[in-house]
Amino acid sequence: MSARSFKTSLRVTWADTDAAQVVHFSNYFRFFEKAEEEFYGALGFSFKDFRSQGLWFPRVEAFCQYKKPAVFNDVLDVEVTVEELRDKSVRLGFTVSNKETGDLLASGYLVIVAVDRQKGRATRMPAEVFEKLKSYAKQVL
Amino acid sequence: MSARSFKTSLRVTWADTDAAQVVHFSNYFRFFEKAEEEFYGALGFSFKDFRSQGLWFPRVEAFCQYKKPAVFNDVLDVEVTVEELRDKSVRLGFTVSNKETGDLLASGYLVIVAVDRQKGRATRMPAEVFEKLKSYAKQVL
Amino acid sequence: MSARSFKTSLRVTWADTDAAQVVHFSNYFRFFEKAEEEFYGALGFSFKDFRSQGLWFPRVEAFCQYKKPAVFNDVLDVEVTVEELRDKSVRLGFTVSNKETGDLLASGYLVIVAVDRQKGRATRMPAEVFEKLKSYAKQVL
Amino acid sequence: MSARSFKTSLRVTWADTDAAQVVHFSNYFRFFEKAEEEFYGALGFSFKDFRSQGLWFPRVEAFCQYKKPAVFNDVLDVEVTVEELRDKSVRLGFTVSNKETGDLLASGYLVIVAVDRQKGRATRMPAEVFEKLKSYAKQVL
Repeated sequence: MSARSFKTSLRVTWADTDAAQVVHFSNYFRFFEKAEEEFYGALGFSFKDFRSQGLWFPRVEAFCQYKKPAVFNDVLDVEVTVEELRDKSVRLGFTVSNKETGDLLASGYLVIVAVDRQKGRATRMPAEVFEKLKSYAKQVL
Repeated sequence: MSARSFKTSLRVTWADTDAAQVVHFSNYFRFFEKAEEEFYGALGFSFKDFRSQGLWFPRVEAFCQYKKPAVFNDVLDVEVTVEELRDKSVRLGFTVSNKETGDLLASGYLVIVAVDRQKGRATRMPAEVFEKLKSYAKQVL
Repeated sequence: MSARSFKTSLRVTWADTDAAQVVHFSNYFRFFEKAEEEFYGALGFSFKDFRSQGLWFPRVEAFCQYKKPAVFNDVLDVEVTVEELRDKSVRLGFTVSNKETGDLLASGYLVIVAVDRQKGRATRMPAEVFEKLKSYAKQVL
Repeated sequence: MSARSFKTSLRVTWADTDAAQVVHFSNYFRFFEKAEEEFYGALGFSFKDFRSQGLWFPRVEAFCQYKKPAVFNDVLDVEVTVEELRDKSVRLGFTVSNKETGDLLASGYLVIVAVDRQKGRATRMPAEVFEKLKSYAKQVL
């Protein structure tokens, strides 16, 4: 039973905000993906490596629930968990909290599929990637 | 039993794309919101009016499922439906299709709550807004 | 002496704004590029065609001067002029005005170079593209 | 004769890129502003403080020259200099380089004016802000 997670943080920039003076809801998905990229970096691989192997990692589902707003200059903690790991796909969970107050601001997930670019269809992810994600996985299906 | 929907379209710009040479997944949420804004415009109101009444319309949930990619210069049809209407919130459904091929590219929803800015909590939406949305609603709860 | 220009318009979306409740300054460059794309479309070509010919059209300079802010839902007129045309590059001028008031909001330019992707260096733009841009050019150098 | 500068760095995210598989030109302006925000943070103030004093710091000019592209996952060094300081405005210079290769990718500037929101016109910047910027200024006019 694994409870490992990856944590990173970021500071809200002016360009992240909208006229409600809070972070635009679409930007949480960019925060999710940025955290995902850093998670992969920490595991020792990147989208770039996948591409050189003829792999894409497109998102097939994206979801976010918004609890409290973030404003300019807030430092946000983003936590990544591997909610469900399958041979050809992974569901990553994300929470975004205010670093100072600890308040949960948003939570959500991305479902990502390994795709063979040539064939244009889902394929097993590389064994090395699968094994590394597995060490974080709550569920392997 | 209502089946009314609102339709608009947009052309994919270079800035909408990412290094996979397709529209970045987060931008579909911007397409959803742009269609929502035009839907309100067609109904005769806007976020601006809400604000002048001390109302916000923050998103509390956002979801999208991706079927096929869109590329630069594609013209996309975006259809908006009122999936569930409540006194204080509305769930809008969205589909994005390729205008030329008719292919469904993505579908999803936004759950939006009317919020009294002063009190900082959910409030009934203005009667006029409710009535107009009702004429499109699949479900009134 | 040519004074031809291309005109298009767009509506400011919520995602275009920032916490100052005006359009974020970086988005004017996206408005410029969107107008450029539509200008090319009106001339009968697109970035896509260039790419299939092994051409890129990267920007080498971008400039904007801001006069007055634009707010959510404003309709903006964007005018494109061909300020300087050379064999391998073009300088497009842009003005952004408020459609309703006619007020000039911003003006600027982009310098764009035709690049042979294989060789990685500047190249003559296709004759057909050059001729079409020429019919709009204030100056051919 | 001061040559002080502020340096920060950032990693290119997938969302920063476009279909040319390089960072979209408009995003350099966001990198500039992010570096500006961190520069102010290092000096001990922020846009937020300005706002609470009824001040805006809108951009009146933005310029960037592009030398070489940046790609996904590149780490970029951004250097900020105070090129010209006046009572009511400041011109910040920026360079963006590839951290690994040291290559200069882009350079440019932002001209920023202190604006009294109530009166809607340029005003002297707070003495404390002016003094701190002065310690970095190449030119005080």
